[in-house]
Amino acid sequence: MFEKPLGMRDTLPSLYSLKSSIRNKMLDVMNKWGYQMIETPTLEFYETVGVQSAILEQQLFKLLDQQGHTLVLRPDMTAPIARVAASKLFQGDPLRLGYAANVFRAQQNEGGRPAEFEQIGVELIGDDTTSADVEIIALMVSALRKIGLDEFKISIGHVSFINALFEEILGNAERADQLRRYLYEKNFVGYREHVKSLSLSQIDKERLLKVLHLRGGIEKAEEALEMVQCSKGKKAIVDLQNLWSQLKSYEVDQYIKLELSIVSHMSYYTGILFELYANNVGSPIGSGGRYDQLLSHFNCPAPATGFAIRLDHLIEALSEVEALKELYGIIFSEERRHEAFLEANKLREEGKNVVLQNITGIQNIDSFTKQFIEVFYFLGKPGKGRES
Amino acid sequence: MFEKPLGMRDTLPSLYSLKSSIRNKMLDVMNKWGYQMIETPTLEFYETVGVQSAILEQQLFKLLDQQGHTLVLRPDMTAPIARVAASKLFQGDPLRLGYAANVFRAQQNEGGRPAEFEQIGVELIGDDTTSADVEIIALMVSALRKIGLDEFKISIGHVSFINALFEEILGNAERADQLRRYLYEKNFVGYREHVKSLSLSQIDKERLLKVLHLRGGIEKAEEALEMVQCSKGKKAIVDLQNLWSQLKSYEVDQYIKLELSIVSHMSYYTGILFELYANNVGSPIGSGGRYDQLLSHFNCPAPATGFAIRLDHLIEALSEVEALKELYGIIFSEERRHEAFLEANKLREEGKNVVLQNITGIQNIDSFTKQFIEVFYFLGKPGKGRES
Repeated sequence: MFEKPLGMRDTLPSLYSLKSSIRNKMLDVMNKWGYQMIETPTLEFYETVGVQSAILEQQLFKLLDQQGHTLVLRPDMTAPIARVAASKLFQGDPLRLGYAANVFRAQQNEGGRPAEFEQIGVELIGDDTTSADVEIIALMVSALRKIGLDEFKISIGHVSFINALFEEILGNAERADQLRRYLYEKNFVGYREHVKSLSLSQIDKERLLKVLHLRGGIEKAEEALEMVQCSKGKKAIVDLQNLWSQLKSYEVDQYIKLELSIVSHMSYYTGILFELYANNVGSPIGSGGRYDQLLSHFNCPAPATGFAIRLDHLIEALSEVEALKELYGIIFSEERRHEAFLEANKLREEGKNVVLQNITGIQNIDSFTKQFIEVFYFLGKPGKGRES
Repeated sequence: MFEKPLGMRDTLPSLYSLKSSIRNKMLDVMNKWGYQMIETPTLEFYETVGVQSAILEQQLFKLLDQQGHTLVLRPDMTAPIARVAASKLFQGDPLRLGYAANVFRAQQNEGGRPAEFEQIGVELIGDDTTSADVEIIALMVSALRKIGLDEFKISIGHVSFINALFEEILGNAERADQLRRYLYEKNFVGYREHVKSLSLSQIDKERLLKVLHLRGGIEKAEEALEMVQCSKGKKAIVDLQNLWSQLKSYEVDQYIKLELSIVSHMSYYTGILFELYANNVGSPIGSGGRYDQLLSHFNCPAPATGFAIRLDHLIEALSEVEALKELYGIIFSEERRHEAFLEANKLREEGKNVVLQNITGIQNIDSFTKQFIEVFYFLGKPGKGRES
């Protein structure tokens, strides 16, 4: 009866403290790179932000407001930020925005997946150059290094490469969607079996299977270039080569690898896209990419690119536990209240965290004082000075 | 179509920055006083937290989850914290918890009232002494002074005084509730008219009207003592006298006044209660008080006291606008990317906020550069050094 709804979590003090510390460091890096933070409402109209957010219908928390409109708890931050940028902030020139906010995805069953989790991310709106994509990736690397994460990889792909390849080989969209789904689920066994079952030439089947092996250094781009014929597909690979060489300028190429089988569930991506992984965490810690069509749905056509990191997965990758700051205790009896208050003030001004407690309010002094690294008693007849 | 739901707001960069700065300072003071921060889920079960939160039914945002339970967007933080304390944290000894969180209250019409707003507050659970109430008020004062608010007043009343007085004079609960409602709405004209219309002796009418004049210094307590007969009513006033004298020890008595007509919409209050006002803001900036029954609804009987401040009203009281941190711009062309990147890094390490921008991504260089206090150009043939 006193439980929480499915997938809902409490954040207790030590995790709270760790989350704050990581968030503050990441936001500080974003600020340093000229990104400005915004906050959007928890509730948005389903018809605008809900539909554009590209989250599966059954993952949306929906409700009716008193005026009869369908509202959603925001399932991501990219669509709300597109709304704000379109209606208030975007003037045509590159706009850099950042956020740290909880998003919501309804869960179907008890599986340990959170239905509310924090994302930290940025959006760079109004810049269609590869420089913008490079900046997003370099900023992400910089923020991760700032918080002490060194062992991570960013897998980079391109929406147009997979689209072009599937179109050339499969022709119709339905067959492509089926294969795309296997890739999105990272079900490579299922992908292979499905490819084998298709009525295609052996050469085409091999082309489709080869997609799974296009992962590694920039040399994989050459192989990919030979696999597609159409200019759209080839241009995607040239874009990736260009991106890679620019990432060298930003001194972050050691963190990246090509992985051309990447497909996102975010249907709004239109160009490069990427996923962030750490060795010890099963799911991606973050993801991002270019989405040049989303803002046009808010009557404000503009190119855009961005990333979002999941704070819970990031903390798993850091595998750190934040030690709460040391706590001092001052326990007083009525007569010596003022003396105790002055001592507490003094210690607080020295930067210490101090609990000031009337002894009458304590049930069990032994268990109560266990939380402190040091306890000062101001009890009984005044004038006896500090005891500790 | 691209609007937000009723009462929902965007927080743009300069307000975001001001909110962060105030929140961080207040949380720092709470930490110094030994309070530990927690976060609870946005969604809670209606049957537990929703019902206990004491917010009017029509102000709750409700939805059904996929398992058929009714959920609410948390309308306050006191009930969720009581849930967490009862189920996980409270061991019998005084427990100090704090939070900064958005809460939700559905609005009926466009009246400028936010349906989602941030509260910053603390709860001190498991201590039934007046010292605990004193600490809550003194901590609130300390946090307000830390953020630079000096002109404020805390009006203090006591639930049991009004209850005792109304019971003695009016007898039945229904008549008392009607009068209580006028007080809650601060509709003193309505209160007076209603009192006059009651079939009571002139003496009793005068006692009821006098409640409105019980505001001022501690000397008002003597007048109040004479107005109630029953021990419960008299004890409430003695509690207030005791509170006042302890607040002197904490050197905060200059901020307080008695206001015995205070009545809260929060039905869970059981003892002293208070409201925080600043001269220039119409509604209370914050409120708080003792609630000794709430935790028993979570199967964990324990006394408790706390306060909550509304960040939006607090910002109104401060009437400050945060100047965003100065922004530097570095604009580069392709060939000089690396040089520009190194310069941006250097400035960022000096603590500056720096936008690094490829000139190709800019639509209008005149409007774009207006946001910077200084711009460095790395354009064209390299080796010409920094231009500014």
